[in-house]
Amino acid sequence: MNELLLRPDGRSPGQMRAVRMTRNYTKHAEGSVLVEFGHTKVICTASVAERVPEFLRGQDQGWLTAEYGMLPRATHTRSEREAARGKQTGRTQEIQRLIGRALRAAFDLKKLGARTLHIDCDVIQADGGTRTASITGAFVAAHDAITQLLTTQQIALSPITDWVAAVSVGIVNGVPVLDLNYDEDAQCGTDMNVVMNGQGHFVEVQGTAEGVAFSRVAMNQLLDLAQTGIASLITQQREALGLNVA
Amino acid sequence: MNELLLRPDGRSPGQMRAVRMTRNYTKHAEGSVLVEFGHTKVICTASVAERVPEFLRGQDQGWLTAEYGMLPRATHTRSEREAARGKQTGRTQEIQRLIGRALRAAFDLKKLGARTLHIDCDVIQADGGTRTASITGAFVAAHDAITQLLTTQQIALSPITDWVAAVSVGIVNGVPVLDLNYDEDAQCGTDMNVVMNGQGHFVEVQGTAEGVAFSRVAMNQLLDLAQTGIASLITQQREALGLNVA
Amino acid sequence: MNELLLRPDGRSPGQMRAVRMTRNYTKHAEGSVLVEFGHTKVICTASVAERVPEFLRGQDQGWLTAEYGMLPRATHTRSEREAARGKQTGRTQEIQRLIGRALRAAFDLKKLGARTLHIDCDVIQADGGTRTASITGAFVAAHDAITQLLTTQQIALSPITDWVAAVSVGIVNGVPVLDLNYDEDAQCGTDMNVVMNGQGHFVEVQGTAEGVAFSRVAMNQLLDLAQTGIASLITQQREALGLNVA
Amino acid sequence: MNELLLRPDGRSPGQMRAVRMTRNYTKHAEGSVLVEFGHTKVICTASVAERVPEFLRGQDQGWLTAEYGMLPRATHTRSEREAARGKQTGRTQEIQRLIGRALRAAFDLKKLGARTLHIDCDVIQADGGTRTASITGAFVAAHDAITQLLTTQQIALSPITDWVAAVSVGIVNGVPVLDLNYDEDAQCGTDMNVVMNGQGHFVEVQGTAEGVAFSRVAMNQLLDLAQTGIASLITQQREALGLNVA
Amino acid sequence: MNELLLRPDGRSPGQMRAVRMTRNYTKHAEGSVLVEFGHTKVICTASVAERVPEFLRGQDQGWLTAEYGMLPRATHTRSEREAARGKQTGRTQEIQRLIGRALRAAFDLKKLGARTLHIDCDVIQADGGTRTASITGAFVAAHDAITQLLTTQQIALSPITDWVAAVSVGIVNGVPVLDLNYDEDAQCGTDMNVVMNGQGHFVEVQGTAEGVAFSRVAMNQLLDLAQTGIASLITQQREALGLNVA
Amino acid sequence: MNELLLRPDGRSPGQMRAVRMTRNYTKHAEGSVLVEFGHTKVICTASVAERVPEFLRGQDQGWLTAEYGMLPRATHTRSEREAARGKQTGRTQEIQRLIGRALRAAFDLKKLGARTLHIDCDVIQADGGTRTASITGAFVAAHDAITQLLTTQQIALSPITDWVAAVSVGIVNGVPVLDLNYDEDAQCGTDMNVVMNGQGHFVEVQGTAEGVAFSRVAMNQLLDLAQTGIASLITQQREALGLNVA
Repeated sequence: MNELLLRPDGRSPGQMRAVRMTRNYTKHAEGSVLVEFGHTKVICTASVAERVPEFLRGQDQGWLTAEYGMLPRATHTRSEREAARGKQTGRTQEIQRLIGRALRAAFDLKKLGARTLHIDCDVIQADGGTRTASITGAFVAAHDAITQLLTTQQIALSPITDWVAAVSVGIVNGVPVLDLNYDEDAQCGTDMNVVMNGQGHFVEVQGTAEGVAFSRVAMNQLLDLAQTGIASLITQQREALGLNVA
Repeated sequence: MNELLLRPDGRSPGQMRAVRMTRNYTKHAEGSVLVEFGHTKVICTASVAERVPEFLRGQDQGWLTAEYGMLPRATHTRSEREAARGKQTGRTQEIQRLIGRALRAAFDLKKLGARTLHIDCDVIQADGGTRTASITGAFVAAHDAITQLLTTQQIALSPITDWVAAVSVGIVNGVPVLDLNYDEDAQCGTDMNVVMNGQGHFVEVQGTAEGVAFSRVAMNQLLDLAQTGIASLITQQREALGLNVA
Repeated sequence: MNELLLRPDGRSPGQMRAVRMTRNYTKHAEGSVLVEFGHTKVICTASVAERVPEFLRGQDQGWLTAEYGMLPRATHTRSEREAARGKQTGRTQEIQRLIGRALRAAFDLKKLGARTLHIDCDVIQADGGTRTASITGAFVAAHDAITQLLTTQQIALSPITDWVAAVSVGIVNGVPVLDLNYDEDAQCGTDMNVVMNGQGHFVEVQGTAEGVAFSRVAMNQLLDLAQTGIASLITQQREALGLNVA
Repeated sequence: MNELLLRPDGRSPGQMRAVRMTRNYTKHAEGSVLVEFGHTKVICTASVAERVPEFLRGQDQGWLTAEYGMLPRATHTRSEREAARGKQTGRTQEIQRLIGRALRAAFDLKKLGARTLHIDCDVIQADGGTRTASITGAFVAAHDAITQLLTTQQIALSPITDWVAAVSVGIVNGVPVLDLNYDEDAQCGTDMNVVMNGQGHFVEVQGTAEGVAFSRVAMNQLLDLAQTGIASLITQQREALGLNVA
Repeated sequence: MNELLLRPDGRSPGQMRAVRMTRNYTKHAEGSVLVEFGHTKVICTASVAERVPEFLRGQDQGWLTAEYGMLPRATHTRSEREAARGKQTGRTQEIQRLIGRALRAAFDLKKLGARTLHIDCDVIQADGGTRTASITGAFVAAHDAITQLLTTQQIALSPITDWVAAVSVGIVNGVPVLDLNYDEDAQCGTDMNVVMNGQGHFVEVQGTAEGVAFSRVAMNQLLDLAQTGIASLITQQREALGLNVA
Repeated sequence: MNELLLRPDGRSPGQMRAVRMTRNYTKHAEGSVLVEFGHTKVICTASVAERVPEFLRGQDQGWLTAEYGMLPRATHTRSEREAARGKQTGRTQEIQRLIGRALRAAFDLKKLGARTLHIDCDVIQADGGTRTASITGAFVAAHDAITQLLTTQQIALSPITDWVAAVSVGIVNGVPVLDLNYDEDAQCGTDMNVVMNGQGHFVEVQGTAEGVAFSRVAMNQLLDLAQTGIASLITQQREALGLNVA
């Protein structure tokens, strides 16, 4: 991989955009984080509800579920408002199901008691990587919500069992790169979203060849990049939460 | 009216909350404003589309329409996401129709050409007065979008014919007050939303007695308060836009 | 105001159209009234259901809710049937929410017991003022339904605490007029719907400047007209119900 | 069949309820009829639209389509409003498809030109037989609409090729009866709706054994009754339209 | 009727297509039958659920309900998928309501206990007569599901009280014919679907004149054909189920 | 990997279930294949439509899109019918988007002309791996549809540029296995769906840790298994199509 190659915004192939996580961004939610991956900005909230879905009634365990949305003008051209249209797109459903699975991988829901943690990720400005920013920010919001449940002694032990963060990788003009912005995403041949935990294991891998299929060699390069990026994101989650780096 | 009476947040009856309008809040929209009335925060964007609705085809005039939404956890307890639910509530529709009418009152749509100005007001934090903040902020966003159309010479003359801003007034514990926050709104007997233009004329008045019906005297007091509040808001819109106070 | 000015149908500015309220118009409902404001005809029914909505369960109080509809060919040109279209328009929702609020303002729902009064207002012929006719007729239908609950001793005390009626006022060709018909409504600059109770206090005021914004002076003239019109409507409600004029 | 047997409302088995058809019941539609079969009351309107559905574009022929609805409290207990519920029931769709087919059987749509005749049948009071009353009344409304098109010379020749009317028959307590009211319908073993033209031929037959299956003998008795009833209805349609009885 | 007349596929007017019923076609359902009427192929399953709909709660009886669908390319040209479209067509609803009524006519639901038998009829290839094939096949699937409930001693007595089968008849080029295929259906003047039980009595008759209305004589010919066809279908149901011919 | 370990159905970890592809399974579609992976059975059809979606108008290229469904009783317990429910689940949308992307990766849509190839995959019996069976069978159906377009000279050159097939892999009880059936899928810790082309390159990889996150080593083992499985599936596609093995 040619580390000298510069990307449209001047980054090297293995370099992430500037990441910021602003906690307590809004005041009502138990956890509320504005996460920024460069120009991509997502408000992630974690809300505690004292009930569980039908399929978990009477089982003495909790649930975590996620919803995702974009403001109509978060994007270059205005998209139709899903609430006005009367249904969520397939893309939205895919993303919110991914966010939910990713976070549940870091939770022992037995320890949550009979409650639901609702994660809401709303993109206010999109520039590529909204789903990976959402997962990364939502983890911090969820952590804050759990801390509040512990502080108020509503639960005794934290249900959080690991860290979780996500990043996109892809092949742009033949070069594997980390954390694609919108322009790169639009012209990229292969796009992969990777979710990993604090031990560097995979929680989810979703790779799509949008133009040319990719080889096993390319996949390995992409996974290497993702591993580095996610390790860095988890470090930033720790810092945002004010926890000592392990 | 007892001017000595202090309100929950220490304001006098005729005092507005701190108002802030941050222009260019997001980067894609032709106009983008974060408007804050105290803790109420709304992202208002104005998007230009080069087409008009069916009913205006071939009439050589433009259109302005508005949509409104709330992030699920903008409120004290999480509300159901309208996109997931599959339809907008009656409240949402009422509000977005109000915003659209209010702004159209300040536009000569003939001068817009065959385009549509889409206004989106998305509440990211709610503390009462979301519809009046939306109208006030949306006007500034629309103004920025029009300035851009003028600058790029897509239109020759501004279609904006007047200023428009809005405020809520109500009777709380028997006292008429200006710009209610959520706590006041929840316990108030009468709630009125007033939209006025730069000449101090009414564009819209919507008053509801939620408990006890209100007298003509009370109505006059409320309209007086609104008039003062809106004059102040229009001054702030001018300042935000960097225009000399007329 | 020039009382000599004649309106399209020959009325003076402060004159209402002929109002008729035919009770027991259909046979199944506990209350059923055909209300006519000139050519506007609305069937208003009040139906008693022995249950309350979820949010009132176990609180030993009742609820009153309203729905509104128009037959597709109640209007000059046929409108799409909302049931076929799969959703109610924003206009329909606004109107039915208004009708519900207006009637609830005249009810002490504690005295209704754990039941719901369903108001249905269905316009069979429209000529302006359908929402104000609906409120005025629905009050009489609701009164009949309550009388039946009292007669059958299902409730001991009437939950009705006041009278409620509504009328539209507007400025047509610069002249404030009472009870606009469709032609006037279509060309009017300002349109206001006013709901008042038996003491002449406001329950709801909704004024919209459709063309030119209106001044405080105009608003006062409109409210004066509305006050007269509603007083007359309440007298007619009393007569329709066969109650002595207070 | 025992002609002495009296039915709940005193009719003999082969006797229809009183039928009334009031033309010009509402003022906007090209044809508007209130049809009553005893206590069953349906407003039938026929509306002319100067366009045809997609599948007939450019084929120089017209279309006739029907929609059906019930006011929520047309029935003994209030039904959910279909517009609020967001979809029409299967029963509603079945009925409106039947009405449309029945009327199209009496039309030569080539002669209608490129227009659509929209039939709307809205039940304001239900007491059995709403679909048969709808067909019978809708024919008269359609006839009035066509007369207007002829009078205004929009069409040269009438597209109406025959008469159409409908009636229900059924077996109640073992006895075949004509024109069931709600009480009979609710307890009847077999229910059949028959649509016939002016020559006594069948346009549609829909018979359902709701309890015990019915024999060929019973079917013949039911068809005899229907034939008599429909002949009488067509006579009444002629009279309502002021046409000489053939 | 001219028995010499040959139909497009070489059948005589009173001849059915080859009928096949393959039991245990899929492995999960309690009853699963592939029914074929010539090229028409429908998968009919019967599924047992240990619950009843709301309106039967606490009444100690069961329910039987049916749903119908077509694979998008079961037909000559691809139809829109109803699940993607977001609602079932009126035609689908009519058919599934018919299937449910037809089968319930052969059931004593008291003997089913508090369970629901869900019938699903999914057309994988359509060539006319899908609804009659569905009813005929669904009866066999339902029989298998009931046999399983008896075998596992979940119920003591069979709720099945009779046989039920269905066939279409119609008038093609003036000749009454049995069991129409798609080509005949498309050009036929009258189309009738008949459902009968094992005693040769009618459960349902639905006849529609699509072109010219039909006489009483024609109706009698059609019913004769249907009676013969259904008797033959019931014999084939018995054989498919391995039961001695009564 | 312990090759001695036997799986519930007696397979070794790297062994696929019996695969069958039956072409011309139904008669109307341009391509129609019943694909079976063990007990999983899916009807895949390819339908040609002479039009393209809005976003491709006037661009002289074609489109390929896919829809997926399951018969309600394709599964162990009956699922709700999506058409009755009024919307497709998130799972269904995810799967049909995946099928569409996978097939488009093997098409040069410029060569298809202004037409759309509609792929429908309908599961009639489910036992794990329905999405991978769908992709594998749909490719063969699409190939047949293209052959027909070539034979009838509607297109001159085949738009098919490569082979595409898919398989699932997962970790069950700590052992990586190929082509999971339902029982394995239900208890598996990691589930991955892999789509590859004829050159052994990746078109799509979707891996999810449902219990424990998986290591890079495990991922490599899974990808090895998938590569073998897909190579075998492509051989079987060639044989089914009667093409010489390259």
